[in-house]
Amino acid sequence: MTETASAPFDDIRRLIATMPGPDEDAVEAVRARDRQLTKPAGGLGRLEWLAEWVAAWQGKSPSIDRPMVCVFAGSHGVVARGVSAFPSEVNRQMLENFSAGGAAINQICADLGLGFKVFDLAIDMPTRDIVEDAAMDEKSCVATMAFGMESLAGGTDLLAVGEMGIGNTTIAAAIYAALYGGDAAHWVGRGTGLDDEGLKRKIAAVEGALDRHRDHLKDPLEVLRRLGGREIAAIAGAILAARLQRIPLILDGYVTTAAAAILHAIHPAALDHCIAGHLSAEGAHQDVLQRLGKIPLLALGMRLGEGSGAALAAGIVKSAVAIHRNMATFDQAGVSGRLPQA
Amino acid sequence: MTETASAPFDDIRRLIATMPGPDEDAVEAVRARDRQLTKPAGGLGRLEWLAEWVAAWQGKSPSIDRPMVCVFAGSHGVVARGVSAFPSEVNRQMLENFSAGGAAINQICADLGLGFKVFDLAIDMPTRDIVEDAAMDEKSCVATMAFGMESLAGGTDLLAVGEMGIGNTTIAAAIYAALYGGDAAHWVGRGTGLDDEGLKRKIAAVEGALDRHRDHLKDPLEVLRRLGGREIAAIAGAILAARLQRIPLILDGYVTTAAAAILHAIHPAALDHCIAGHLSAEGAHQDVLQRLGKIPLLALGMRLGEGSGAALAAGIVKSAVAIHRNMATFDQAGVSGRLPQA
Repeated sequence: MTETASAPFDDIRRLIATMPGPDEDAVEAVRARDRQLTKPAGGLGRLEWLAEWVAAWQGKSPSIDRPMVCVFAGSHGVVARGVSAFPSEVNRQMLENFSAGGAAINQICADLGLGFKVFDLAIDMPTRDIVEDAAMDEKSCVATMAFGMESLAGGTDLLAVGEMGIGNTTIAAAIYAALYGGDAAHWVGRGTGLDDEGLKRKIAAVEGALDRHRDHLKDPLEVLRRLGGREIAAIAGAILAARLQRIPLILDGYVTTAAAAILHAIHPAALDHCIAGHLSAEGAHQDVLQRLGKIPLLALGMRLGEGSGAALAAGIVKSAVAIHRNMATFDQAGVSGRLPQA
Repeated sequence: MTETASAPFDDIRRLIATMPGPDEDAVEAVRARDRQLTKPAGGLGRLEWLAEWVAAWQGKSPSIDRPMVCVFAGSHGVVARGVSAFPSEVNRQMLENFSAGGAAINQICADLGLGFKVFDLAIDMPTRDIVEDAAMDEKSCVATMAFGMESLAGGTDLLAVGEMGIGNTTIAAAIYAALYGGDAAHWVGRGTGLDDEGLKRKIAAVEGALDRHRDHLKDPLEVLRRLGGREIAAIAGAILAARLQRIPLILDGYVTTAAAAILHAIHPAALDHCIAGHLSAEGAHQDVLQRLGKIPLLALGMRLGEGSGAALAAGIVKSAVAIHRNMATFDQAGVSGRLPQA
């Protein structure tokens, strides 16, 4: 029984073990071209590195023709404990708002020319309350990861991932506490704007969940299944699929990074094709990013979710690739190179 | 003779004294609408503040329909002292590169939908070597500021300013040292990539200029005139004109900020309509921004000039205003508001 039950997770582990690495030839080609562009070496700072990063994971000369934002929406039983400033019915309402083009992320995508897709992960059927039970069973967790993997079908060459789900900063905090230890209070933030009493309930919920599952948190996939969130599982699947399909990926903030942290805990190179789009103002996001070795591209004090920070970062990545592709070389422009150095 | 000579600067001082302030009603209207948008209060962090800032200086509901990047190009006699890794002939070549659309800034403007103008400030006629003489006479300095003021004619509703000019990081370093004191070495960076010997020559040039003009550096406009740079004078004029015409303005990096620092030294509120687009990797830009009370929007390790950092920041400001204008309200979207708090 145990052996059969663990088989689905074994498939995930096998996929992670076979992840492709960066294309060093593509990186070298970017560096060679960069040296010829009409600018001082290093003048574009991280933009130069971004062009290399896109090339490394696309495995070719970098280009961004179909950038996309994917938002995964989930619903959480733990909300019944009063851990959010907003009610769970907002999940369905916000999905409709996304469809009608009224949310913040819709405006960013329209402004920056990014495609946009939202995935409803059974939003009317919350996962179980993690203080009392595992959020998902193994089969359902893996099926949700597989759903996330399939979300990329149809194709994109730069993926920004985000989430929506009332209560999911509680879920993310529980995952971080399980992976990294430390007090629940260190990981918990005010989410959409909790008052002091709500914050106490939220910390108590995370403590309760850790206590309930304490003997089963060594395996990161068990952390994912038990502390859950279908959107977290789907994002983990999307991150993995992007790696296999050679799509560079931009992580959004506090909740999205929890999915990344699960994969990173399984394999330290699992996020090499990912950048942190921004530093969220929620909870201990800075601490998490340091553990993942990621320097966020933007730091604008945002804590909205919806992929909003990742989408803004995608605009910067698009610009970086456009610069690299379209700038003139010293020869083309007839611009003199550096003076001979002493 | 002295009285006649000082009259042009007096005109500038009068303009600065009559600068309009922010429109508080427009700011309050942005805040009132923001509270109704389908997101938690504060969720968009600095983007919310940016919408307020644009409204404050446009004096109306914020909108960005004609964003523009203006680049001012100058040429510097001090280059003969070996303070740059590139020769002065690059100035003309880069102007042609801008016109042909081959520079980095061209790609950013094309990608983000920003208008672009370059102004040639007598680039074939370098200003005088500041170690030996004043860069400009007063009449020429004021005429260049007036030229910068007129550059905005034709209209824009969001202005990003930048510069190009071999040797102008030496000029900027001299201006900062004159305004703020401290060792020349503190303010001097490697510009477009100076080696160690070049860096020594650059520090010596700044020290020599400070020594030459030391008895005349109390008046910020004298600092501008003596340590110069026509592009710096023109940018100072553009900043002032933007204030008078109610155009929010985004500063580029190390050199552009020197023009802002001159105005700030004349009047501490002179830059209230400006934001720092980015933190440059050149010299002591961070120190300068702290003195000006500006937190840069981006920090991408760039040090290219050409308005490149300001232009990328303009993309973020555009997104912030698009979000504010186009998001649905809770009522429009039928999204539930916050739960009653305890």
